[in-house]
Amino acid sequence: MTIPRLTSRDIRSDSRLDVLHAILSAGEVTRNERAQVTGLSAATVATVVGELIAEGIVLETKVTVGRVGRPTATLGMNADRGRVVGVDVAETYVRAALFDTALNQLEFLEVERDEHILDPEVMTEAVGDILDRMLEQQRLAREAVLGIGVTLPGLVQGPAGLSVFVPNLAWRSEDLDRLRERVGMPLVIDNPLKAIGTAEMWLGRGRYCSSLVTVNLGTGVGAAIALDARLVRGATNSAGEWGHTLLVLDGRECRCGRRGCVEAYVGVPGIVETLREIAPDHPLTSIDLQRDFILAMAQAVDRAEPDEAVHATIDRTAYYLGSALADLVAVVNPEVITLTGWTTWALGTSLLPAVRRHVREQAPGTSADGLELELSTVKGNSVTTGVATIALERSLADAGLITRRTAITL
Amino acid sequence: MTIPRLTSRDIRSDSRLDVLHAILSAGEVTRNERAQVTGLSAATVATVVGELIAEGIVLETKVTVGRVGRPTATLGMNADRGRVVGVDVAETYVRAALFDTALNQLEFLEVERDEHILDPEVMTEAVGDILDRMLEQQRLAREAVLGIGVTLPGLVQGPAGLSVFVPNLAWRSEDLDRLRERVGMPLVIDNPLKAIGTAEMWLGRGRYCSSLVTVNLGTGVGAAIALDARLVRGATNSAGEWGHTLLVLDGRECRCGRRGCVEAYVGVPGIVETLREIAPDHPLTSIDLQRDFILAMAQAVDRAEPDEAVHATIDRTAYYLGSALADLVAVVNPEVITLTGWTTWALGTSLLPAVRRHVREQAPGTSADGLELELSTVKGNSVTTGVATIALERSLADAGLITRRTAITL
Repeated sequence: MTIPRLTSRDIRSDSRLDVLHAILSAGEVTRNERAQVTGLSAATVATVVGELIAEGIVLETKVTVGRVGRPTATLGMNADRGRVVGVDVAETYVRAALFDTALNQLEFLEVERDEHILDPEVMTEAVGDILDRMLEQQRLAREAVLGIGVTLPGLVQGPAGLSVFVPNLAWRSEDLDRLRERVGMPLVIDNPLKAIGTAEMWLGRGRYCSSLVTVNLGTGVGAAIALDARLVRGATNSAGEWGHTLLVLDGRECRCGRRGCVEAYVGVPGIVETLREIAPDHPLTSIDLQRDFILAMAQAVDRAEPDEAVHATIDRTAYYLGSALADLVAVVNPEVITLTGWTTWALGTSLLPAVRRHVREQAPGTSADGLELELSTVKGNSVTTGVATIALERSLADAGLITRRTAITL
Repeated sequence: MTIPRLTSRDIRSDSRLDVLHAILSAGEVTRNERAQVTGLSAATVATVVGELIAEGIVLETKVTVGRVGRPTATLGMNADRGRVVGVDVAETYVRAALFDTALNQLEFLEVERDEHILDPEVMTEAVGDILDRMLEQQRLAREAVLGIGVTLPGLVQGPAGLSVFVPNLAWRSEDLDRLRERVGMPLVIDNPLKAIGTAEMWLGRGRYCSSLVTVNLGTGVGAAIALDARLVRGATNSAGEWGHTLLVLDGRECRCGRRGCVEAYVGVPGIVETLREIAPDHPLTSIDLQRDFILAMAQAVDRAEPDEAVHATIDRTAYYLGSALADLVAVVNPEVITLTGWTTWALGTSLLPAVRRHVREQAPGTSADGLELELSTVKGNSVTTGVATIALERSLADAGLITRRTAITL
C-alpha cells in the first residue's frame, strides 16, 4: 500500500507548513491572528511559531500595544535567510526572478529565445546564463541561494510525453543532470501548471479557501487543482491537463495530436480560428504573432465603433470557455476558479460575464451556484513566482523544517 | 479561512481510521502486518490497536505461533458491536442490505417501485417498510442498529438540483426530517456515487492504491474520485459528475438538460441511440426495458453468428467511453480506474480491450501508461454496501472514535 500516512512527526511539520503558509501569504500578523487563520489551536501555533523563530525562519518584527490586554508581537517571514530563484523556460523566452525568503521579488530578467532551437544543451545554457547574470547584478554568491525552481515547456503534458509543445525536444535524465550541474545549486523542476497553482495558493485566492482551480489561458491552456489546500499532482504529475479534455469529439485538430481538445478552441490559435470561421477575411486573422493578435482583439473590443466579428468571436469564445469550465466544475466541484495567463489579462474582463453565465447554466445541479469565478490577483509572472515558491518549500523540507506529502518531479 | 486543519487529536483519530480501514478491508491480519499496510509506525499501530480492542471495535481472534519469534495475535473487526443498514432508493426499486460491524452482509431485500410515483412521502414509506421487514426477519431491535445510510436518486446531481433524474421529485428539509423519524435510527443520506466510491475504497481496489476513480455505468453514468485515500466530495458534494461533462458540444440531448454529455452516449439510452444510428430497424432497438436491452446486447456479442450492427455499437461505445475516460485521466491523473454498474457486468469484458486502447491513445502524454483500468471486484450491490459503510464511519465518528475530515451530506 503506497498511501502516504501522517505520523506525529508529520503533523508537527504539517502545522509548520500551515503556519508558514499563513505568515507568508497574509504578510505581518500577530500570533493570535495566526491561530484564527490556520484553524490550529493557539497553543499549537505558539509552539510552532516559537520553533520557527528559533530557527530563523520567522521574525518578530514589532511589538504593538493594543487597547486591551498585553502587548502582541507582530510576525513576519525572515526575508534574509537567503534567496530563491524561479525560472520559466518557454519556447520563445526564458524568464528568471529572484526572491528573498519572504517571497518579495528582488529582480526580474527576460531574454528572448529562438523558438527553433530546442536542444536541451542550448536551453540549459540559456538558464545558466540568465542565472549567472542575475547573480552578478545582485553581487550574490551561489551559496546564498537556497534553491532554484525551473519550469520546462511541455513537461509531463500531451501525448508526446515530456515534449508535446516542442516535438523535437526531449529531456533525458542526463540532460537534467547537466542542468543541475550548470545551475550549481539545489534544483527542482516542475510543470508550469503546478507552479501557477502554487503561486495562487501561497499568494492569491488560495489563501482563503480549501478547494480551488486556477486556469491558465495563453497559447496553451491548462488548470491547477488544489483540494484541502494541497495541489493535486496525479500519478504522473499531469493532473489538471484540462486543456486536453474534449470539447468536441473528433473536432478541431489540437497540436497535442488529439482532436477536439478545449485548447483547440480557447487557446490563442483556437480564438484566431474562431474569428476566421466567423469572418474569413477579417484583418486580425492575418496578424502574425499571437500576443499582437490578442492585444488587437482587446483594442477592437474597446473601440467605440463596434466590430461585429470581434464581438461574435468573444461571445463564441466565452461559450467554449464556459462550457469547458462547467466540465471542471462537474468533476472537481471547487469553491473557487481563478483565471490567469496573458489571454486573461487582455480579454478576461470582456469574457467574464458571459463565461460566468455559461458555467452556471451548464454545471450540474446547483454545483456552480456558490462558485466564485474571478481573475487571479497574483501579481507579476505567476510561473516564476510559483516555481520559486516550490524551491523554497523544497529547501525547507530538505532542512527537515516542513514535510511535503506530495512528490515533486525530479 | 475554512481549510480543515489537523490537530494532534485529529491525527490520533485519523490513525484509527487508517488502522480500522486496513483491518476491515484486508480481513484478519496481525499487528505487524497492520503496520506494514498502513505505513504507520509499529508503535503507533500498537497504541491504536490497544485502544480499539479496549473499546470493543477490534478483536484478537486467535493466536498463531509462527516458525520464528513470539506468538502473534490475529486481529479482526468485532462483527458483534452492532448492525448497519444500507438502502439504495432508485426510481424503479428500493434495495436494502443489513451488515454486521465487520461489513459482512447478513441480508438483502429488494422491492420494485412504481417509477411514476416519486413523492417523498411514498418513498419514505417504502424505505420504512423495507427496513421494518428486515428488522422483523432478523428479529432485530432498532437499538441494535448503529446507523442507516440511504442514497436518493439524483441527489446533488444535474441542473435541476436534488432531482435531476426525477424532475417532479424534490426532497425538502421537512421531507428529510420525516424520513429520519420514520427510520428511527441514526440516518445519513448521501449521493450514490459517493457510496460506490466508499465501497471501492474499503472493499475493492482502493485498498491498495492512493488515487482511484470508480466509474459507474448504467442508465446514468458517473465517477467517484479518491485522492490520498480520501473521497473527493467537492464544495456541494457533487464532485465526480463526469457523466455530465461534454463529449460533444451541442451534441445529443442529455436528460439533465445539457447537450452532448458523456451520459447521452454511454448511458444505456445512449447505447440504444448508437445502435439506432447504425441500424435503425435493428430488433434490439425495440426492446422496452433497459436491462433487457443490455442483456440482449451481451447475448448478441457472444453469439457464434456475428451481428455486425451490435459489434459496431460495441466498438463505437468503447470509443465514446475511452475518450471520456481519457478526459478523466487528463484532469485527475489517477493510478487506477475501476468500472462498475450493470452495464459493466453485462458488457464490461467486451468493451474493456478497446476502451483501454482508446484511453492510452487519447490521454495526455504518458499519463495513462501505468494506469490500471479494470472491472471492479466489489461484490454485491456496491451502492447499499457503500452507504452502509458511510453509516458505520459516521457512527464511529459520532462516538468520537474516528475523525471525518470531509462533510457528509445532511
